[in-house]
Amino acid sequence: MSQLLKVQNFFLSGDGFGTGEGQSQERPFGHANPAELAAWAGATASWPNRTDPGGSMGLDDHLVRDFHYNIGAEIMGRNKFGYQRGEWADHEWLGWWGDEPPFHTPVFVMTHHLRPSFTLSDTTFHFVDDEPAIVLDKAKDAADGKDVRLGGGVTVIREFLDAGLIDTLHIAMSPHVTLGSGERLWESPEELFDRYHCDVIPSPSGVIHHLFWRK
Amino acid sequence: MSQLLKVQNFFLSGDGFGTGEGQSQERPFGHANPAELAAWAGATASWPNRTDPGGSMGLDDHLVRDFHYNIGAEIMGRNKFGYQRGEWADHEWLGWWGDEPPFHTPVFVMTHHLRPSFTLSDTTFHFVDDEPAIVLDKAKDAADGKDVRLGGGVTVIREFLDAGLIDTLHIAMSPHVTLGSGERLWESPEELFDRYHCDVIPSPSGVIHHLFWRK
Repeated sequence: MSQLLKVQNFFLSGDGFGTGEGQSQERPFGHANPAELAAWAGATASWPNRTDPGGSMGLDDHLVRDFHYNIGAEIMGRNKFGYQRGEWADHEWLGWWGDEPPFHTPVFVMTHHLRPSFTLSDTTFHFVDDEPAIVLDKAKDAADGKDVRLGGGVTVIREFLDAGLIDTLHIAMSPHVTLGSGERLWESPEELFDRYHCDVIPSPSGVIHHLFWRK
Repeated sequence: MSQLLKVQNFFLSGDGFGTGEGQSQERPFGHANPAELAAWAGATASWPNRTDPGGSMGLDDHLVRDFHYNIGAEIMGRNKFGYQRGEWADHEWLGWWGDEPPFHTPVFVMTHHLRPSFTLSDTTFHFVDDEPAIVLDKAKDAADGKDVRLGGGVTVIREFLDAGLIDTLHIAMSPHVTLGSGERLWESPEELFDRYHCDVIPSPSGVIHHLFWRK
């Protein structure tokens, strides 16, 4: 099978927002509380940030564990990498992901302001100023035959949707989380039904998994 | 995480049977029609026996694809290997799985009648006459740090359940398939609820996934 471009474990509020308003270094999700959006994933055995043993091993865990399965590269928007806008004022700050980023593959950061690549642990960040199809080509080359994850945020997912480049999407909607404003992915998942099949799977945890694949 | 023992993609009829009555060389599932029990899996993109491209890529596909994920060995009962009972009358016949068995790992076949190991493609069949805990130790040793799949059939799953050795089970029940007799796994999944958590997940395809993990 050819290499796929996949959105995986993308957290969404019940009203369709991937992140809140007012992103800053201290608040990567703006006014949204990322712990609320990630609560379903944090309860699973496979959640990489667990501090205690245990965790559920049902449906949610299958999907969390799937995050790395056969993934050879990630594409993300600049705002998923960090808080700075415009020219890079601070090259010393290496993004939100710490010394051990959770990607473990090459990561392509889309930005109009290039800077040199660098490596943290087993993740290398590259900065690219290209249209989505070109970025995808670069990521597939780097992925060594494996699939490519499209990490978001919302703006980048919408660009790749508009370009017809996404093969599958897993959107995890937390229906009890309402943001009211921020970066909106959709008014309703039905907006994608013309182009994608969709399994809508309510999990016992309360999160509603939306699994899209191309028609 | 330590090595797990997992039942995966185990097909079950709506009335709790894993296989029908009257197993023979021609009818591995006895009076049951395996195509009915496997229909949900056969519709997915990841089904290994697909002859046409395409196939669904939603929930069912995640679970079918998961069959091989981090699995280093399989344990199965003698009746999943072949139709012969008692002493091996025919050593030339190498089981139901063809020249390219779908396991791609060592397989441990539980039988009171030993015979020499043999290899077909990248699957090696070993024949063992031990209690479940010993067989599991052998399979874990062979799995090179990965998990072990318990392939069934029903008799073997019940033996390992009774011995308290199974960590997770994925049972795919086809509610519209009724067998009436054969090898029964349960009267109801509730029989396991004292020892296991369970996510019961109806798929849009009609199959009902039961995902168990230890309490």
